[in-house]
Amino acid sequence: MSTRKIVADLHAELVRYNLVVWTAGNVSGRVPGEDLFVIKPSGVSYDELTPENMVVCDLDGNLVEGEHAPSSDTAAHAYVYRNMPEVGGVVHTHSTYASAWAARGEAIPCVLTAMADEFGGEIPVGPFALIGDDSIGQGIVETLKGHRSKAVLMQNHGVFSIGKDAKSAVKAAVMCEDVARTVHVARQLGEPLSIPQDDIDRLYDRYQNVYGQRSPR
Amino acid sequence: MSTRKIVADLHAELVRYNLVVWTAGNVSGRVPGEDLFVIKPSGVSYDELTPENMVVCDLDGNLVEGEHAPSSDTAAHAYVYRNMPEVGGVVHTHSTYASAWAARGEAIPCVLTAMADEFGGEIPVGPFALIGDDSIGQGIVETLKGHRSKAVLMQNHGVFSIGKDAKSAVKAAVMCEDVARTVHVARQLGEPLSIPQDDIDRLYDRYQNVYGQRSPR
Amino acid sequence: MSTRKIVADLHAELVRYNLVVWTAGNVSGRVPGEDLFVIKPSGVSYDELTPENMVVCDLDGNLVEGEHAPSSDTAAHAYVYRNMPEVGGVVHTHSTYASAWAARGEAIPCVLTAMADEFGGEIPVGPFALIGDDSIGQGIVETLKGHRSKAVLMQNHGVFSIGKDAKSAVKAAVMCEDVARTVHVARQLGEPLSIPQDDIDRLYDRYQNVYGQRSPR
Amino acid sequence: MSTRKIVADLHAELVRYNLVVWTAGNVSGRVPGEDLFVIKPSGVSYDELTPENMVVCDLDGNLVEGEHAPSSDTAAHAYVYRNMPEVGGVVHTHSTYASAWAARGEAIPCVLTAMADEFGGEIPVGPFALIGDDSIGQGIVETLKGHRSKAVLMQNHGVFSIGKDAKSAVKAAVMCEDVARTVHVARQLGEPLSIPQDDIDRLYDRYQNVYGQRSPR
Repeated sequence: MSTRKIVADLHAELVRYNLVVWTAGNVSGRVPGEDLFVIKPSGVSYDELTPENMVVCDLDGNLVEGEHAPSSDTAAHAYVYRNMPEVGGVVHTHSTYASAWAARGEAIPCVLTAMADEFGGEIPVGPFALIGDDSIGQGIVETLKGHRSKAVLMQNHGVFSIGKDAKSAVKAAVMCEDVARTVHVARQLGEPLSIPQDDIDRLYDRYQNVYGQRSPR
Repeated sequence: MSTRKIVADLHAELVRYNLVVWTAGNVSGRVPGEDLFVIKPSGVSYDELTPENMVVCDLDGNLVEGEHAPSSDTAAHAYVYRNMPEVGGVVHTHSTYASAWAARGEAIPCVLTAMADEFGGEIPVGPFALIGDDSIGQGIVETLKGHRSKAVLMQNHGVFSIGKDAKSAVKAAVMCEDVARTVHVARQLGEPLSIPQDDIDRLYDRYQNVYGQRSPR
Repeated sequence: MSTRKIVADLHAELVRYNLVVWTAGNVSGRVPGEDLFVIKPSGVSYDELTPENMVVCDLDGNLVEGEHAPSSDTAAHAYVYRNMPEVGGVVHTHSTYASAWAARGEAIPCVLTAMADEFGGEIPVGPFALIGDDSIGQGIVETLKGHRSKAVLMQNHGVFSIGKDAKSAVKAAVMCEDVARTVHVARQLGEPLSIPQDDIDRLYDRYQNVYGQRSPR
Repeated sequence: MSTRKIVADLHAELVRYNLVVWTAGNVSGRVPGEDLFVIKPSGVSYDELTPENMVVCDLDGNLVEGEHAPSSDTAAHAYVYRNMPEVGGVVHTHSTYASAWAARGEAIPCVLTAMADEFGGEIPVGPFALIGDDSIGQGIVETLKGHRSKAVLMQNHGVFSIGKDAKSAVKAAVMCEDVARTVHVARQLGEPLSIPQDDIDRLYDRYQNVYGQRSPR
């Protein structure tokens, strides 16, 4: 399947899991073997996305192919691709519960086994950064480089997630909101029990390695 | 596309984003070049709305065309069109989170970059006003005239949003509920971090101007 | 439209507004001019309801027509029809927010204009009552007879709503959950502002009378 | 209907009631008259499940038929079937509200009649257990054996539910999340009223026996 089709189709997962409203979230995917990525066009509704109206950019975020302007978050995606060669997909959302943690500037503690599996520990907070230059991209990369988590809560803003490909980044965005919500709900009526660090390590190792050799759960 | 079709179709966005139940929300749009606006008929369910059963009113809220009575909120829409000539669309909902802030008479503080983009600061509260005369319309206009926000939380009631056209007013209604929910959730477990006023100003300016010259995000 | 079809179709509204899970809610409607009512069959999923598999009972709750057993809540519906001749429809749900108020045995205060319109004041709590005899029916009738509210929160149980016909009772069930949720959310972060009693009276009077002569909002 | 088709189709109920995201929940059903059970394949999305791609395992969890690997939770399902011969179906989810109670290690108190009907009292908490051996299965069986509840909240993890067949286990998973949510919401604004133990007993007895002889409500 073409990267254009993969990226266009994956936006439906953001809609399905209620991670986005209006046009306020976006998926991108690196084109295999090229210094290019495919990203959502700006201002086009999710219902209208097709492989054809996707936009192709170079790793500086310049438009290479496409009739629409690229997403206004393109600079952040491009910065991640330039600085994290292992990343093949990036997702940005303002999903409710994750953005609420981000508004308080508070990391999500790892109190669920599913969180240990997917994120290997807490989901960290990145800096407050304005759109318009590389500030957001730098904040993402500084927070996630060398971190187990594939998602970062950008302060007062929302979520950026990464993955080896676009699908994996979308999965991380979906799981991030899911655990953000469950831990929020747990905290509303008391303090969740903590999971010992070596159990978190065991769960993460198993999920990333044992299952990674077969197929994802 | 005719104003009738635009207004009829936009009600589907209120349903899609769960801003309304039963028949309790409505969209209107000014007819370009005429002192008329198109509005939802009263008591017709969202499934049954068509361009044909929309109602046309003059700027005093009198029925000009249509077989159904206009929405019971028509007087408020009409007052806005009479007194804010720059407004081309008005939306009214009782969306849950925004109405909850309205029930406490509390403005939504601007602690999300998406809120700075769309609303340029807090979403303000308008007065408690009874239906039946121009009180609601006056409350909307007094609160929003000269304010950056395109949405007002009418005390103990719900949301009215405005825009240059009906679609823009619907977007404001959707974003208002989205940020009302996220800020509510953030506040449940502590105090959200504030965004400095000059950063709010920069975000608002960029979103309204830089992006306004291209296409909305 | 036949009462069977009306009642079968209205169950879709319970599903649409997430008032029910599995098979745990039911609608009934009085057959015009006869001492009979149509009700949901027991244990049939909402997807499978048709006019044909609806059940007809007399006002003592005895099966008159139908291949399935009537809903396990039939005795409560029957008691209401026997004792409130003005009632033409009854709905029962365990909708989340209304049932949460019911679990605390707390009436929902009237702090929203939409609540004043539809319910004319608070939504009251009925007694704790076991299924198996007329206790639930008695609790509903004792609470709602002479009360403006068309819905009652049965303690530790759920909601029963009534109306002049089945559609009106379904509307009351939908609006009950909607205001139960909004007032709950409002209360989570402080105390909602009260609406003066004479304003509640004016809103209720207008909605029931002025709009009652035209069409519902 | 074949067990493969029953199990494949029942996953749609997990999706319908928002009990799962991505591929993180699973249903299994015992094959009547054989020491085998059918379970979800690992890493296949809910949209793609068919009778044909279901997986058949023996009661030690070994793959007997199927082209995909079985769910990563297969060992826990197998342990339940080996040790609870009366169980014909098992369901696992990370549904939000139930998992939030599980994160705090707190049983859900029986303060709703629907909970008394279905679970006969509180929904208990099982131990913290790591995936990879029989720990999770043991925790489920030790908690549920001899207990009225058909669901257990595995600490820091999620829900396992059981039933006489797969449909009954899915119903228990759906009802577990429903009551987990309602009791959570009730508790947010105060303390729910308790139901006397003998009333819980009467409700449970009636629901399991009187209704069990006819059809489920």
